[in-house]
Amino acid sequence: MGSNQSIGIVEPKTAVLGDLRLDNGSILSPTVVAYETYGTLSPNKDNAILICHALSGDAHAAGFHSESEKRPGWWDEYIGPGKAFDTNQYFVISSNVIGGCKGSSGPMSINPVSGKPYGSSFPFVSIKDMVAAQKLLVESFGIQRLLCVAGGSMGGMQALQWSISYPDVLENCIILASSAEHSAMQIAFNEVGRQAILSDPNWNNGLYEDSATPRKGLALARMMGHITYLSDHKMREKFGRKPPIGNLLNSDFAVGSYLIYQGESFVDRFDANSYIYVTKALDHFSLGKGQELTKALSPAQCRFLVVSYSSDWLYPPSQSREIVKSLEASDKRVFYVELTTNEGHDSFLLPNQRQEDVIRGFLNMPVNE
Amino acid sequence: MGSNQSIGIVEPKTAVLGDLRLDNGSILSPTVVAYETYGTLSPNKDNAILICHALSGDAHAAGFHSESEKRPGWWDEYIGPGKAFDTNQYFVISSNVIGGCKGSSGPMSINPVSGKPYGSSFPFVSIKDMVAAQKLLVESFGIQRLLCVAGGSMGGMQALQWSISYPDVLENCIILASSAEHSAMQIAFNEVGRQAILSDPNWNNGLYEDSATPRKGLALARMMGHITYLSDHKMREKFGRKPPIGNLLNSDFAVGSYLIYQGESFVDRFDANSYIYVTKALDHFSLGKGQELTKALSPAQCRFLVVSYSSDWLYPPSQSREIVKSLEASDKRVFYVELTTNEGHDSFLLPNQRQEDVIRGFLNMPVNE
Repeated sequence: MGSNQSIGIVEPKTAVLGDLRLDNGSILSPTVVAYETYGTLSPNKDNAILICHALSGDAHAAGFHSESEKRPGWWDEYIGPGKAFDTNQYFVISSNVIGGCKGSSGPMSINPVSGKPYGSSFPFVSIKDMVAAQKLLVESFGIQRLLCVAGGSMGGMQALQWSISYPDVLENCIILASSAEHSAMQIAFNEVGRQAILSDPNWNNGLYEDSATPRKGLALARMMGHITYLSDHKMREKFGRKPPIGNLLNSDFAVGSYLIYQGESFVDRFDANSYIYVTKALDHFSLGKGQELTKALSPAQCRFLVVSYSSDWLYPPSQSREIVKSLEASDKRVFYVELTTNEGHDSFLLPNQRQEDVIRGFLNMPVNE
Repeated sequence: MGSNQSIGIVEPKTAVLGDLRLDNGSILSPTVVAYETYGTLSPNKDNAILICHALSGDAHAAGFHSESEKRPGWWDEYIGPGKAFDTNQYFVISSNVIGGCKGSSGPMSINPVSGKPYGSSFPFVSIKDMVAAQKLLVESFGIQRLLCVAGGSMGGMQALQWSISYPDVLENCIILASSAEHSAMQIAFNEVGRQAILSDPNWNNGLYEDSATPRKGLALARMMGHITYLSDHKMREKFGRKPPIGNLLNSDFAVGSYLIYQGESFVDRFDANSYIYVTKALDHFSLGKGQELTKALSPAQCRFLVVSYSSDWLYPPSQSREIVKSLEASDKRVFYVELTTNEGHDSFLLPNQRQEDVIRGFLNMPVNE
């Protein structure tokens, strides 16, 4: 990679923003957004880049919260001094989606009326709503134009939505490993995850207590999801048919004990209601395909970079090409790259010199190219 | 298809056979095997074909149990008068695997010691053990040589195991949509299914009562499995992003309500313990790969037909080619066909003129070709 330097210690922040009218008509009040920033906003506020996270991500995209934190933010490989999103040049904003459980308004927020967490009484949140909350955050900095919005997977959907919700705000849009709408198979995997949560005896229609959360259901949802983020190749390489390490976990195979561990550790850091809300936002996001998609994307004015990954079977390159085709059909400026990788859908999160070069090259290109 | 004629009414039968020493050293006594036969055994007993079923299959491969049965056996398209496995020519035997729950010895059998169902105290059963029980059944007819053993998916593993367990019994072996061993990803999907059952509060270490079975866990396992049996293409075609029919089931999408229905109906016809036993048999089946596989297959004397399906991402064509490569490496007689289909792993179960022609052609070919 171009640089191994980290942005260093970063401070998690929370913005309490104005009311937000959601897609479904409900009013979210207040709109709370957890965020982090990296780099310095230029005096004329023209160097801001917004980073959007995927399903289980959060605002902590780069750097460390403390000296003792073991792992940096989820995209530290790409955000920092000298990196693709170069914090020596850009002011990078990363925020947590509403509907999530990492500090932004969501099912775990306290309902001011009842004084208790919303749980499943939190209103349905769409990708468009997530983006609208981010817009409030960006405005709170006095920023009128974003140099770029970038994200992978669900983050890519947000970036795409930005380009049409606020076409005059965006200069560039980077969409990695994403889709203009979920296929039946993508919905199906999410649905089984949701059903696993709903099947948990602690589910209680989403009104569970802290003392008895639907851990087992959420762990199952994560285990299954995790398979879809990897590739056959990667799993062969990493686990093959090896037996489990130790004999602590209830599986005959290494891949089984790994998934059980992933499920168990996920429930300590994620909320079951948020899992349902966010996967529903993913499944309901639909800009259509073909002419319908071309029409949906027609308001966009920015330049696009679309990246897909050869080993990604969950968000296959064909879905990225569908976006590219529709953008080209209405003469948008669009660059498309399919990267050859072995890591499946997770590829966009992992170190990749070529991905770094592609993002850097796109951002450094004169605007009219 | 060549013929739409069904074999008609067939009678489910049960054979109580001798003791069987299982792979793990336990003795199964008695060995009970549920089976059906179609066609007539020739006087010199040289026209018998054994059909092996997949994970959730049973002995009912063709015909109807009664006039009122709505759907015929699972491979009725291929077994019957004038069909690929032509019951005018062949005596077709189809049996239920041991470890299953469709009449053969398995976790639902009564343990003669306790007078109660074995449940999870039933011994571990391997693919080799399933085949050994089938051998006892075949012997009970006085059959010395089988014209063919054929099966898809887990049935293909059984057919492959037959070729090396009893090389002097087999003339032909047909292996469809199968593998010489599960990859990490195949194990992973089964593992999540097992974990779903183990997470069900009714699981009780496999010692559940009829009145409270781990239905929810088993339904989840089936829902997830079902996704892997289909293809992205087939799901787009069948469901796309359509809303559910009616509003009875807890999903926003047709594909979700379909999977919920599949899960619900599966628990009425399958046992959770058997699901665990049979998926473990699948995951533990391992003839190796490359030279190891070549060595494992070296005892085989029969002729092979190996068929894979272009849209099968669960048992991808590469796994079939691995078998073919190893058979060729030790100069076995092997024919390989990759059929172009859209239906995913389930392809081998569905009507396909080309598959019918390939099977028929293989069976009709003079033995030395």
